Amino acid sequence: MTLQYILELAGTYFFAVSGAVAVQDKDQDWFGAAFTGFITAIGGGSLRDILLGSYPLVWIDDVLLIYAIIAGVATTFLFFRVIAKLRRTFLLFDSLGIAFFTILGLEKALSLGVTAEIAVIMGMFTGVMGGVIRDTLTNEMPVIFRKEVYATACLSGAGMYLTLKYFGVERSPNMLICIALVVAIRLLAVRFKLSLPTLK
Amino acid sequence: MTLQYILELAGTYFFAVSGAVAVQDKDQDWFGAAFTGFITAIGGGSLRDILLGSYPLVWIDDVLLIYAIIAGVATTFLFFRVIAKLRRTFLLFDSLGIAFFTILGLEKALSLGVTAEIAVIMGMFTGVMGGVIRDTLTNEMPVIFRKEVYATACLSGAGMYLTLKYFGVERSPNMLICIALVVAIRLLAVRFKLSLPTLK
Amino acid sequence: MTLQYILELAGTYFFAVSGAVAVQDKDQDWFGAAFTGFITAIGGGSLRDILLGSYPLVWIDDVLLIYAIIAGVATTFLFFRVIAKLRRTFLLFDSLGIAFFTILGLEKALSLGVTAEIAVIMGMFTGVMGGVIRDTLTNEMPVIFRKEVYATACLSGAGMYLTLKYFGVERSPNMLICIALVVAIRLLAVRFKLSLPTLK
Repeated sequence: MTLQYILELAGTYFFAVSGAVAVQDKDQDWFGAAFTGFITAIGGGSLRDILLGSYPLVWIDDVLLIYAIIAGVATTFLFFRVIAKLRRTFLLFDSLGIAFFTILGLEKALSLGVTAEIAVIMGMFTGVMGGVIRDTLTNEMPVIFRKEVYATACLSGAGMYLTLKYFGVERSPNMLICIALVVAIRLLAVRFKLSLPTLK
Repeated sequence: MTLQYILELAGTYFFAVSGAVAVQDKDQDWFGAAFTGFITAIGGGSLRDILLGSYPLVWIDDVLLIYAIIAGVATTFLFFRVIAKLRRTFLLFDSLGIAFFTILGLEKALSLGVTAEIAVIMGMFTGVMGGVIRDTLTNEMPVIFRKEVYATACLSGAGMYLTLKYFGVERSPNMLICIALVVAIRLLAVRFKLSLPTLK
Repeated sequence: MTLQYILELAGTYFFAVSGAVAVQDKDQDWFGAAFTGFITAIGGGSLRDILLGSYPLVWIDDVLLIYAIIAGVATTFLFFRVIAKLRRTFLLFDSLGIAFFTILGLEKALSLGVTAEIAVIMGMFTGVMGGVIRDTLTNEMPVIFRKEVYATACLSGAGMYLTLKYFGVERSPNMLICIALVVAIRLLAVRFKLSLPTLK
């Protein structure tokens, strides 16, 4: 087990928790919460792999990821009151999660031989589309249309990663820098209620 | 033509009818009703095959399934008043349909070499995701978040099928038992307004 | 560069404009508008290729299409006030776009060896599903359930193309006739507020 694999399991676990918690306002039953946790955790990576035609999908090939999701959903069931109060901590974990998955998705797309433009899009999709699919299924306006600088933070991190890579920065420091960049943009945007300009 | 194939055509036909009827409250035109009938009938199996990378999709390879859907939509157009009144009969057919497709989806996933956990998920997806995609497109809260013990019934049936198979029960009796289990759970849940506990 | 390829780039550009403009009532930020422009432009063709298992997807293999989308989104940002007023001109471009993509999608499906029924469905999907996915993500009732004779126009054009092809009409005149047919049906339906009969 490499460090990266452990981080992937942890990221999947946190995505499942945040997906299962997300339905709290809707009076969902246990199955609804488990389903949204599952979709949030596997949606972005699955969409990326389907668009790129890269089979088998990650979670279908590795049953440990399914158990990480089940653990995340179970944690939500058992500690729902505690988790629902930890909004600020959650923002941090959620930002770490989308940042980490954005870079992993970017790397996977590059390894499949696509151009830089497509790799950046695939990185962003990996980070945010699980939440988008969850919101679409539960009839909410998707997070990328609501939240301050959400997908844009992922695009920035992915662009930075490619740039630093081009200039010869090693993989590990590059990942750390770009994850920190995404998290910093997200936290600053939420803290100061920043948003992009609208069309009008 | 095997019995199973005839049942598949019949299941597709009934899924198309239930999908086309589902839009009745929305004042849809003929195309809208045909489209939702089509999506309901092919959505679950298509999602399963796309996730598993199993091509060609069943309905693309077998044009008879398209005609079963057209027949289902035409039936709805011609006998809309009658069908709209047969709510109770429909619940039975709908439950039979999702049960049958759950087991078929589970078997197909197993035949493609996935683990038991993935096969159960794929069986459930085959049964319920057509309706979920239909509800998402027509801006309704998907059936799995509303209805009493809907997807959970499919999960139970799929789990039971694997268990009985493990203990050596033959395919035909196993299918009958598990379809009966799914239908029984559904009908009891509707009859007694059972639902899973919520998170709170 | 063939004429067809230039038309594909132009069609992608106009689809991106119409997708980015579509969010105007929703007070979206720049990212939201770019995202909906992107989804509208690539959604229909991507769904067709995923359903047919035809990889790589067109826009992943050809980065010029991405730049056509970026140009369309940038045009919307710069000339939003002008474009928002050109409703009638837009209806024409939008109708030309869905008509052209319907025929291209139909031809691609045929070239992959599917039956005529499936090819007509794939043509229609190519024309209209980008808009449907956009509307689903932004929580609107999809265009095919609202607009006068929208997808039905595509089905008519696709059916006519196959019929004329069967009777030996050459590709270029056939395309022109069928695109004109789709546009004419759309414009007449909007002009005279035609719609298909409803179920009731």
